[in-house]
Amino acid sequence: MNVGILGCGTIGGGVLNLIDNLPSSANVKVLKVFDLPSKKEMLGERFAETIDEVCQNKDIDVVIEAMGGDKFPYECITKALKNKKSVVTSNKETVSLHMEEFYSLAKENGVQFLCEASVGGGIPLICSLIDSIKVDKVDRIFGIINGTTNFVLTKMSKEGLSMEDALAEARRLGFAEFDATADIEGLDLTRKICILSSIAYGGYVPYSEIYHYGISKVTPEILADVKEKGYILKFVAESRRTGDKTCKVSVEPCLITADNPLSAVSYEFNAVYYNCASNDLLGFYGKGAGRYPTATAMVSDVRRISENAGKYTFVNNGDFKVENFLATEKYYAYKDGKSEIVDGMKDSSKYDFVARIF
Amino acid sequence: MNVGILGCGTIGGGVLNLIDNLPSSANVKVLKVFDLPSKKEMLGERFAETIDEVCQNKDIDVVIEAMGGDKFPYECITKALKNKKSVVTSNKETVSLHMEEFYSLAKENGVQFLCEASVGGGIPLICSLIDSIKVDKVDRIFGIINGTTNFVLTKMSKEGLSMEDALAEARRLGFAEFDATADIEGLDLTRKICILSSIAYGGYVPYSEIYHYGISKVTPEILADVKEKGYILKFVAESRRTGDKTCKVSVEPCLITADNPLSAVSYEFNAVYYNCASNDLLGFYGKGAGRYPTATAMVSDVRRISENAGKYTFVNNGDFKVENFLATEKYYAYKDGKSEIVDGMKDSSKYDFVARIF
Repeated sequence: MNVGILGCGTIGGGVLNLIDNLPSSANVKVLKVFDLPSKKEMLGERFAETIDEVCQNKDIDVVIEAMGGDKFPYECITKALKNKKSVVTSNKETVSLHMEEFYSLAKENGVQFLCEASVGGGIPLICSLIDSIKVDKVDRIFGIINGTTNFVLTKMSKEGLSMEDALAEARRLGFAEFDATADIEGLDLTRKICILSSIAYGGYVPYSEIYHYGISKVTPEILADVKEKGYILKFVAESRRTGDKTCKVSVEPCLITADNPLSAVSYEFNAVYYNCASNDLLGFYGKGAGRYPTATAMVSDVRRISENAGKYTFVNNGDFKVENFLATEKYYAYKDGKSEIVDGMKDSSKYDFVARIF
Repeated sequence: MNVGILGCGTIGGGVLNLIDNLPSSANVKVLKVFDLPSKKEMLGERFAETIDEVCQNKDIDVVIEAMGGDKFPYECITKALKNKKSVVTSNKETVSLHMEEFYSLAKENGVQFLCEASVGGGIPLICSLIDSIKVDKVDRIFGIINGTTNFVLTKMSKEGLSMEDALAEARRLGFAEFDATADIEGLDLTRKICILSSIAYGGYVPYSEIYHYGISKVTPEILADVKEKGYILKFVAESRRTGDKTCKVSVEPCLITADNPLSAVSYEFNAVYYNCASNDLLGFYGKGAGRYPTATAMVSDVRRISENAGKYTFVNNGDFKVENFLATEKYYAYKDGKSEIVDGMKDSSKYDFVARIF
């Protein structure tokens, strides 16, 4: 199995290291790595100057996309699939927007499209979800699916840091980008719950219609108030199927109690739970961020392709209509140092901060 | 894919129901079911009077063993494998004793042996562990892997029941056998941690050498004392690789704190965590007991066989030498209404009850 890698940053470089260190019995080799010319010296003969040296290389079986963003990765992934290369990606942005096309192209060209690392980093989550829907019915998914914000909230809750200091610490440890807006405002989580919901329900749950409310307004005072009331504040993504083509999905801060299985999910760890008709509640826990956990998930995807396992095609049986939980659930609402519990949130803008009671 | 089922009790009957209700596109059919003559009327034409009607049936591809016990299931499983049938089992007793032979016979005969449901009921645990060891190194496993005892301890801790009443309630709900000794004394957990450790380390970790200390002596007074000291009492199986061919394994009550990921695992739920060299800590949660969770895991195994996925052969690269944690860890020791913390447990028999500080 010959592999080409697009992007040799934190994740792509991790994949390269892991594959280079696999035993020869694994029979997986990296032939080409595309990146900026500054990496040329480090990569030596394996350096690829253009994506075509990877995506159109007749010796390459699997293309690993580890660049991030949407437009360029989209171009690379479609090109690779059309050239009959299987594709492995960790890119939630492009997957959440184009998953139907990627899976269809893979099927048309007799190859595989795998994106385990796009949600939950190193957690074997998407493969488990796909296994579940093949024999069971999944109607609800909830979890902590962003390592950066869970790290920040844990640091603030447990160690009393300000958000600014917690974010600085996350950056220092490599858990946050310089611009963490996509994490803090919930865009990253929205992409991930879009992917999970779409696979679980067998229909596209449009990314752009998912309600999200960020955690930028969380303060140490709010966390103290929440704690005093017996809750823990977590940034939670939740999705519930409500009908044949309808669902409720949200990404918002939630107040949970200590007996909730998400309560002990701290720092950069992620956890996702889903409810099945036959198998009840299943849960998955692991590092949602970080070089080697994410790279390991991608190498596992390569291994699945080499064993011809993990076969799956997402078929969009019609887009889902998406609602949120605002009208029907209880909310914690904070303003000017005081909080109240509101039954149904009509106008969150009149409060300093709101969070759903989970 | 044509299936034969051995044993049509709680689990086997659940598998039969699930397969009968799969969409025809799944292409899985149950042809024969072996059980006692009393089930003949219910099973109609599919009733098999002898195991040979299943294990030697030329139309059957997969044999599902759901009988329990060791001697007879061992005979059936080996016969099925030798007749080139893939085998799916939930039987931890026979798997923990004969896994090497079962996997070898499967390989020799070009078929598969899958035992996902033998540990953790419906949790996709063994398949994930196998996926992990193919690209990573696993050095530690710990978890709550017995639904009956976790149900009993949760009922006692949270609702103040005596062990007798908690066990009666577990029986009423179908979470405990009439004779729950194998659960209470830790034999069931010992079998399961034997299977997990052996797969994780690539060598047999002998069942008979694993230290186990049961929970039969737990009283409401002990639980109150433990709680007052800030702990939660859980029945935990743990395994750590300590060298090339050595490991420490134990099944014993442990005191954990609220920030331990096992703390929110209550009632009949199970959770298993393992540490990987690259992927850090992974965790899996779900129902460790009950008809449909266990049956779902078995149907997923059948699906893996039909897709030719899940390929794996356990090769015993030499038995492991097994030690326990008694000499090196801190223990909670209770006697005559008083408790103390002991560094290294030299003689547990002089106390009414002991539990490891996890």
